Amino acid sequence: MNITLAQAEAAIAAAKIKAAEINTKMDICVVDPGSNLVAFARMDGAWLGSVDISFKKAKTAAWFTMDTAALSALVQPGQPLYNIEHSNGGLITFPGGVVIKNTEGEVIGAIGVSGSTVEDDYKVAVAGAAVVQ
Amino acid sequence: MNITLAQAEAAIAAAKIKAAEINTKMDICVVDPGSNLVAFARMDGAWLGSVDISFKKAKTAAWFTMDTAALSALVQPGQPLYNIEHSNGGLITFPGGVVIKNTEGEVIGAIGVSGSTVEDDYKVAVAGAAVVQ
Amino acid sequence: MNITLAQAEAAIAAAKIKAAEINTKMDICVVDPGSNLVAFARMDGAWLGSVDISFKKAKTAAWFTMDTAALSALVQPGQPLYNIEHSNGGLITFPGGVVIKNTEGEVIGAIGVSGSTVEDDYKVAVAGAAVVQ
Amino acid sequence: MNITLAQAEAAIAAAKIKAAEINTKMDICVVDPGSNLVAFARMDGAWLGSVDISFKKAKTAAWFTMDTAALSALVQPGQPLYNIEHSNGGLITFPGGVVIKNTEGEVIGAIGVSGSTVEDDYKVAVAGAAVVQ
Repeated sequence: MNITLAQAEAAIAAAKIKAAEINTKMDICVVDPGSNLVAFARMDGAWLGSVDISFKKAKTAAWFTMDTAALSALVQPGQPLYNIEHSNGGLITFPGGVVIKNTEGEVIGAIGVSGSTVEDDYKVAVAGAAVVQ
Repeated sequence: MNITLAQAEAAIAAAKIKAAEINTKMDICVVDPGSNLVAFARMDGAWLGSVDISFKKAKTAAWFTMDTAALSALVQPGQPLYNIEHSNGGLITFPGGVVIKNTEGEVIGAIGVSGSTVEDDYKVAVAGAAVVQ
Repeated sequence: MNITLAQAEAAIAAAKIKAAEINTKMDICVVDPGSNLVAFARMDGAWLGSVDISFKKAKTAAWFTMDTAALSALVQPGQPLYNIEHSNGGLITFPGGVVIKNTEGEVIGAIGVSGSTVEDDYKVAVAGAAVVQ
Repeated sequence: MNITLAQAEAAIAAAKIKAAEINTKMDICVVDPGSNLVAFARMDGAWLGSVDISFKKAKTAAWFTMDTAALSALVQPGQPLYNIEHSNGGLITFPGGVVIKNTEGEVIGAIGVSGSTVEDDYKVAVAGAAVVQ
């Protein structure tokens, strides 16, 4: 099961609403379970450097079928996955990449958000993922 | 003057309508004049390999402020720009990348379309660019 | 529908038999429909440079859901897709990448073979693809 | 002395058995002493992001003729090889890459395993390496 474009666009629309609500400007990327791009939007004035970060957050979540926030503790110095970011052409391992599941709990894609604090990024990603079922 | 996200989304919407009208499935990318991504959509069932081609068509058009079709003759063996595709991490120099201008004629972005024949790709790109003013 | 590892290994086993039969040494790669690697084998003495070519043949076939041989005429100088190989981190557009379909005709993966003439590469790829259903 | 494809396939078969035994799904890669790929298998359902990690673990072990676990302490902040991961297109310096030796103790290849905890990855890599002699 792969996320459809209509679902990806719904996720981006919901993410944009949440981003505006908390007064941020975000780059928002949606990928399928194979980490191939489905849809993307850069809100006016959002950081250019966050385009690629949103890609890598979405891809990292899809590649490991887990939110990027779940990796953050494991990749610190001295921890088991230290410097895993050098794989796959670059991972992002801080919050803002969130898996998207259907009602059966299957991962059908992932959303990556970047453009503000990681707390804000995470909130907006969750808002986007929540509307897809 | 940079294309806005709303304009980019309008271009993608128009491109999707044209793509459906001619019975194709397209990857559609919009960039700003700095060749930075603004918006992207992969229609359900469109080729995965066309994601990157749509990016490179849009970027190539923006980098040189001309439609990619204008480059095709110049890059052939023996011609002045032979193998220019090796620059910029990869150019695409066949039709389907089209500049987007405002009513004053300024380039405010570019659209790249890939997923069918180059004739179809070009038609869909033009349809997308036409709605932005 | 994604090819399973058991199916990919069966394809590689069949490809190896065919390769030996025609007295060649091949690199053989199988990917899923998202162009992610499933299985690979380099026969003893096969060219090292063919490892990556087998990857790119399999990926190219999966990305465009067509055999790489179907692209060869289109990418020549003066033809519509000239220099498309600069996309996707490098395509291979000569024979040896073959899509793998299930009995319903859906593309479930692709096999890429490199190590001899393109005619031999193609024969071995077809032999590998043929055993998966 | 280079590992043969038959030996590499035996290593992967043993690694798959151990992976199943400890209820994990692994990406398993075998390279020769020149860090060139010999064989690879992604178990059904194993992380896509672990394909490249298994490659980099195997290559790192082969490039330095030592298990990747031997590097972990040396690459920490303040330690002698801090950020060595930036070389060679990306190293992985946590456990799961294991050298493969013949009965004379010569390194004939390396195996890289990724898909679970680093402890599990290491166990499976050792199980794979152990059957080659």
